Amino acid sequence: MSAIDGLVQEFSRLPGVGRKTAQRLTYFLLKRPPEEARRLAAAIDRVVEEVRACSNCGNLSSENPCEFCRDARRADSEICVVEEASDITAIEGSGRFRGLYHVLGGHLSPLDGIGPDELNMASLMRRLENGVRELIIATNPSVEGEATAAYLHRMVSVLPGLKVTRLARGLPVGGDLEYADGVTIAEAFSGRREM
Amino acid sequence: MSAIDGLVQEFSRLPGVGRKTAQRLTYFLLKRPPEEARRLAAAIDRVVEEVRACSNCGNLSSENPCEFCRDARRADSEICVVEEASDITAIEGSGRFRGLYHVLGGHLSPLDGIGPDELNMASLMRRLENGVRELIIATNPSVEGEATAAYLHRMVSVLPGLKVTRLARGLPVGGDLEYADGVTIAEAFSGRREM
Repeated sequence: MSAIDGLVQEFSRLPGVGRKTAQRLTYFLLKRPPEEARRLAAAIDRVVEEVRACSNCGNLSSENPCEFCRDARRADSEICVVEEASDITAIEGSGRFRGLYHVLGGHLSPLDGIGPDELNMASLMRRLENGVRELIIATNPSVEGEATAAYLHRMVSVLPGLKVTRLARGLPVGGDLEYADGVTIAEAFSGRREM
Repeated sequence: MSAIDGLVQEFSRLPGVGRKTAQRLTYFLLKRPPEEARRLAAAIDRVVEEVRACSNCGNLSSENPCEFCRDARRADSEICVVEEASDITAIEGSGRFRGLYHVLGGHLSPLDGIGPDELNMASLMRRLENGVRELIIATNPSVEGEATAAYLHRMVSVLPGLKVTRLARGLPVGGDLEYADGVTIAEAFSGRREM
């Protein structure tokens, strides 16, 4: 296979990248100075080389423990549990949480053979036994995410004095009521707050 | 900068890839086996290492002369001139052309300082002097592409016996008349053919 076809094929494997986009990306790199393409290749190699799951929380990081687990300024009495490491970036973008994280590595999905043992749940239990006061369940607001949240809730109910919360569902800020789905509007009604 | 942030930044430089998409691509690679990411990095490095502009036609290729210029089965009496090497892939996809190509490397754009000397026009003239019978101008159907086509037409008018053609404008196949713009419909009318 020619070098160009080879790169088109590799780009096509990326999510949301079809054959046309892969061609566009390939020719884009060929039109730019070669250093730019080499920098991209080096950044990919570096990520594969350096990034590992944090042995404490499961976050993907070049450091172990990861930057959040090492940060003494973060409250270790609160743990926010998420499905994927990429969810942490989104939560950090909100600037509203200063505790620690725990990455499950997915959600429960019996049909795909993903049960509690395939997710980082045992390590979460061990962490919760060490003086954690609140567990914030931030799995996705999807069917699988809700099922995973319900399972977690039951699992941690044996721990005395642990507060378990779930992120609020409702209308997305900046969204349009007209385009919100019925389930979201129903959640927004049942979670309404006094002004 | 962390390895993850570094790759997000490099992906963000690609056309049509914003910060969110760059994050998605980065975490996608981290979830897949490391060989896949390494293959992508190697394919990028290989393209930068191997691919050069063909010294005859300007096409980007690992070979010099490129696969089209070397192919004895292609008619060397017809040259199709395009703006970019990526246009060749689109034309080859049509299966309708079996002649040779010539890549200009862009279009005339005086405001950006791109005149005839910045494009591969002199080399086109030299090629046309060697028994070429038809020049098919396949620059883009845009303002700049039309201006470039008009310039080329004037430039080659000194060559006796050379037929100069331009790809037809009209309704795109599978398109919807209702959504076609007025200029395209006007072109489709003036280029209409008897059934």
